[in-house]
Amino acid sequence: MPVVTIEWLEGRAPEQKAQLAHALTQAFVKTAGVQPEQVWIVFRDVKRSDWAMGGHLLEHPKPASSV
Amino acid sequence: MPVVTIEWLEGRAPEQKAQLAHALTQAFVKTAGVQPEQVWIVFRDVKRSDWAMGGHLLEHPKPASSV
Amino acid sequence: MPVVTIEWLEGRAPEQKAQLAHALTQAFVKTAGVQPEQVWIVFRDVKRSDWAMGGHLLEHPKPASSV
Amino acid sequence: MPVVTIEWLEGRAPEQKAQLAHALTQAFVKTAGVQPEQVWIVFRDVKRSDWAMGGHLLEHPKPASSV
Amino acid sequence: MPVVTIEWLEGRAPEQKAQLAHALTQAFVKTAGVQPEQVWIVFRDVKRSDWAMGGHLLEHPKPASSV
Amino acid sequence: MPVVTIEWLEGRAPEQKAQLAHALTQAFVKTAGVQPEQVWIVFRDVKRSDWAMGGHLLEHPKPASSV
Repeated sequence: MPVVTIEWLEGRAPEQKAQLAHALTQAFVKTAGVQPEQVWIVFRDVKRSDWAMGGHLLEHPKPASSV
Repeated sequence: MPVVTIEWLEGRAPEQKAQLAHALTQAFVKTAGVQPEQVWIVFRDVKRSDWAMGGHLLEHPKPASSV
Repeated sequence: MPVVTIEWLEGRAPEQKAQLAHALTQAFVKTAGVQPEQVWIVFRDVKRSDWAMGGHLLEHPKPASSV
Repeated sequence: MPVVTIEWLEGRAPEQKAQLAHALTQAFVKTAGVQPEQVWIVFRDVKRSDWAMGGHLLEHPKPASSV
Repeated sequence: MPVVTIEWLEGRAPEQKAQLAHALTQAFVKTAGVQPEQVWIVFRDVKRSDWAMGGHLLEHPKPASSV
Repeated sequence: MPVVTIEWLEGRAPEQKAQLAHALTQAFVKTAGVQPEQVWIVFRDVKRSDWAMGGHLLEHPKPASSV
């Protein structure tokens, strides 16, 4: 029943997501008594040019006219 | 006023989304008295490699070193 | 598999949500071939004082010092 | 950097959320090399009368006129 | 058309939300050429006991048996 | 601490997102007393074929068999 959403920067390897999905699910099973198949996990990879902190995009593509 | 978000696995045809958008909007109009143009629907297609159930990604790309 | 989220203003009767949940699920079954039990719907009621349009909260509680 | 959202049914004890927050964060640290303080977790408790599966709210309050 | 969601800790005064809704909307109008009435803003107040950083809930209610 | 999500139609230039990220962050600093580095902003660009209003997708690709 938990729907778990992970919003983070893109660039993670599929193996890493697989391991994390397993570990997160186990955390729900052990600490919250949830059945594994009830845990739905969705990864949302965000581009660095779509994430801002401190008022600045993490990656700021140069404008086309900047040369 | 309702913002309706549909998070599901990618792969649906545009015609199917169009039919569904129409049917969902009608459901709001008929059962909740909402004006059609007030219903905003956003589809979020999720890759099978970004969705996990039971601790496993629905699609687990083989690691580069698996050959 | 679809996770459907409905974000709207609070104040709807439970019966209305029940009818809508049924109608939305039927829309998925008929137009997208989804099994009913695969459709998860979450209603998120938002207070009028937490929703803004055109730069104004839909309900703006008077400041304590406004008398 | 990961923002982790957990949407589930209300009714969990605060201690259980605390244990889960710890376990989930550890999962990110161990499998994804994330610093603990970079993991933000938000629990969203959903009422049973706001969650539907199979076309039915998990809890359907009787209409006022049902007696 | 932008749907702007603000997820933060509860406790802000309504006047502060009103000012912020106005300022955020102006930012869209000035930098993105959006009409004010097209900007929908939703505030989601989160309890300190539902938000974790560094593996710890920001407010951890003592367990009932802790005395 | 605020996590700000902007869901809108794709097609905005990176410079526009950069300016908006700056302006939105300033709005939080000035009206809510938040430190700039505490403001996390995530842009979610949505395709016109994934957004519906009034029951119609904003862009409806013709079905393959429509000729």
